[in-house]
Amino acid sequence: MGEDGRAGFPLDDRGAAYGDGLFETVLVRDGEPLLWREHCERLEEGAARLGFEAPERAELDALPARAGAGEKILKIMLTRGSGGRGYALPDVASPRLRYRIVAFTPAAQRWREGVSMRLCRLRLAEQPLLAGLKHLNRLENVLARSEWQSPDIAEGLLRDQHERVVEATAMNVAWLENGRWLTPWLARCGVAGTLRRALLAQGLVAEVDDAGLERLVKASSLCLFNSVQGVWPVQRLFDETCSHRLGRWTITTTSGQRELQREAHSLLGHPLP
Amino acid sequence: MGEDGRAGFPLDDRGAAYGDGLFETVLVRDGEPLLWREHCERLEEGAARLGFEAPERAELDALPARAGAGEKILKIMLTRGSGGRGYALPDVASPRLRYRIVAFTPAAQRWREGVSMRLCRLRLAEQPLLAGLKHLNRLENVLARSEWQSPDIAEGLLRDQHERVVEATAMNVAWLENGRWLTPWLARCGVAGTLRRALLAQGLVAEVDDAGLERLVKASSLCLFNSVQGVWPVQRLFDETCSHRLGRWTITTTSGQRELQREAHSLLGHPLP
Repeated sequence: MGEDGRAGFPLDDRGAAYGDGLFETVLVRDGEPLLWREHCERLEEGAARLGFEAPERAELDALPARAGAGEKILKIMLTRGSGGRGYALPDVASPRLRYRIVAFTPAAQRWREGVSMRLCRLRLAEQPLLAGLKHLNRLENVLARSEWQSPDIAEGLLRDQHERVVEATAMNVAWLENGRWLTPWLARCGVAGTLRRALLAQGLVAEVDDAGLERLVKASSLCLFNSVQGVWPVQRLFDETCSHRLGRWTITTTSGQRELQREAHSLLGHPLP
Repeated sequence: MGEDGRAGFPLDDRGAAYGDGLFETVLVRDGEPLLWREHCERLEEGAARLGFEAPERAELDALPARAGAGEKILKIMLTRGSGGRGYALPDVASPRLRYRIVAFTPAAQRWREGVSMRLCRLRLAEQPLLAGLKHLNRLENVLARSEWQSPDIAEGLLRDQHERVVEATAMNVAWLENGRWLTPWLARCGVAGTLRRALLAQGLVAEVDDAGLERLVKASSLCLFNSVQGVWPVQRLFDETCSHRLGRWTITTTSGQRELQREAHSLLGHPLP
């Protein structure tokens, strides 16, 4: 890393100045990272799309062990580094790699009982050049998450400006339709999560374009998931003001959500509820 | 400022993590800021739209004098600070104010002779909640500016996803049509520059919605401008590959651009070419 990987960012860092960089949040258990290949690949693909070099895999591989014993989140931030004139890129970028480690306790009750979700008013802007990336331009997520404060609402469902369902503020979504798990295609906006990537690779989930809210509401099951929290079944979906319930799903030990949970949690080392 | 205003950002700063903040680049001559009221107002309006407190005006007012003698750029960065869980906001934000000062020499030859501009391939995404703000989510500007390297091209013209002209990568645009200076309305995307704001307030420029490329090409004059560089007349406009010239304008001491330059440069203390 050259510089101290836990140091902050100088004011001329392009990540701090423009959000010109990427991040990963990795579940680490007793120093062992989960879905590590998926996280490294997404970071490398993101750097390639933004046009700078990702670190050597060996440099990344040294990070998870630093988390020590217990369940932790390793947050990796990779920026284009300093330099360039304004928005113009430096001739040769020297990307800056930083990391922090924070304690983590998964929300086991949410695995078991499911969660309530509301619709967000914010509609995601469509930018194919950035879609799918876990880049540092996350003001839309921040604004969407600021739409509600109640701890009873676990997540907010985001649509794009053509009313297509995309994702939740910090999780991907999937729903069960005619016996198949479907998740939105993320070629226009949204973050393509690493658990989503692993589930797609296994063929357990399929991508679908152009799904509106009505398909989710009619689905036999609806779930939220990411590589840290695992799978949260959705029990209730409310509208933007939380005054109307748009959908309700029963969560039992045999309902459809458990299949997705079983596969996802085995990838993450999370227990089944 | 509490902490040192020139220190970097800690890794948990929301500006560094999510681009959750704003910036201003202020022209300062011998310690005196230009368009200072416009910069402070935009910063305050931006903080209000993002939902956090701007610093007291006295705290901002102390910054320009630190630039010392000569022409400088004062870059002010204001983030929501640290805290919150993921995208969720902290209960009470402690915004973080930082600044840096860099030397500046305006491009006097560009005032005089004008510049060449090209069309960008990137189409700006439309997000009304962020439109107009000089926020820290600037990956689109970075990607647009990375489309060309030639020093002969001074700027790139950006359109939105409905083919409407918006701005250049780091400057606003205005064109002369039937004796009136027009500039795009920026309610869907784009940065509302402080010089633009001052020229609009003076009634020298009017906002227009829904202008396509054909209107710029037919205009009797086309200019680029911001609060640091002043006004650059556009001499040539090229397509995305720089293989076709879409427009050409003659720059003389009596051509239309000089009127805009005269007003703008008197606001910025820049000489007339």
